[in-house]
Amino acid sequence: MAQKAIQDYYHDEIAHCYGCGRLNREGMHIKSYWEGEEGVCHYRPDPRYTGGFPGYVYGGLIASLMDCHSAAIASAAKLHREGLSPEDRPLSRFVSASLKVDFLKPTPIDTVLELRGRVKETGRRKVIVAIELSAGGEVRARGEAVLVQLPEK
Amino acid sequence: MAQKAIQDYYHDEIAHCYGCGRLNREGMHIKSYWEGEEGVCHYRPDPRYTGGFPGYVYGGLIASLMDCHSAAIASAAKLHREGLSPEDRPLSRFVSASLKVDFLKPTPIDTVLELRGRVKETGRRKVIVAIELSAGGEVRARGEAVLVQLPEK
Repeated sequence: MAQKAIQDYYHDEIAHCYGCGRLNREGMHIKSYWEGEEGVCHYRPDPRYTGGFPGYVYGGLIASLMDCHSAAIASAAKLHREGLSPEDRPLSRFVSASLKVDFLKPTPIDTVLELRGRVKETGRRKVIVAIELSAGGEVRARGEAVLVQLPEK
Repeated sequence: MAQKAIQDYYHDEIAHCYGCGRLNREGMHIKSYWEGEEGVCHYRPDPRYTGGFPGYVYGGLIASLMDCHSAAIASAAKLHREGLSPEDRPLSRFVSASLKVDFLKPTPIDTVLELRGRVKETGRRKVIVAIELSAGGEVRARGEAVLVQLPEK
């Protein structure tokens, strides 16, 4: 799992997401990696994703990163709890039931953003993931997502 | 204010947002209109904004719509409370401090989405806006945003 991102294990038929689908040619291609007990994503925003103020990203970009990254974390964490990786068994797919983002400081566009997230709570089909987004060594936004596992078929 | 969207009154220097900036050539061009006591936005998603599952939008699109639309509502509502419109006085600019989205049902991509939002609470520089997103006559998502007014200069 070192080289391949979590999203690269999604089935082709669900790999078209604008945020994280590897098969969406115009999309953002968000990539999440599992490290120890957390999911990590590095993302350099395209200049088009500017916010109202030059030099910073728009809020929707931050929400998109949090949303797709948290779904990947929920999927990978489920396997990780069983001591498995996506090489061993296909990922279960999670979708967001809710997402909360706190925008703490403006997030610069001309740098690599780092998102680190962890599972905060696990239910039978529900997972809560907490994420911090940093840039230039400062936390710029915090997110919390509630995700629900889809039925396998 | 009937023809011009709220975002069309933003100063040029803050009109580059990927979500709602009229000067962002590759952006979404979200447009919000003031109607009575609420802000209304109609948006037909480009096919690229698909979610993981074909036929539906990705979560980040919904968050982006909520974020930009709520900022426009906060700006317009401030003038409206004083019996004014953006024709009378420049809009104050609001930015999101936080955004919560509840994804209730999948949101189809091949149709016009309707967002209706209202101010729920007003402080000195803070406004809370509640938004519902509908498609095909059904509410698909609910959002709540806390916005803070930027200093005038």
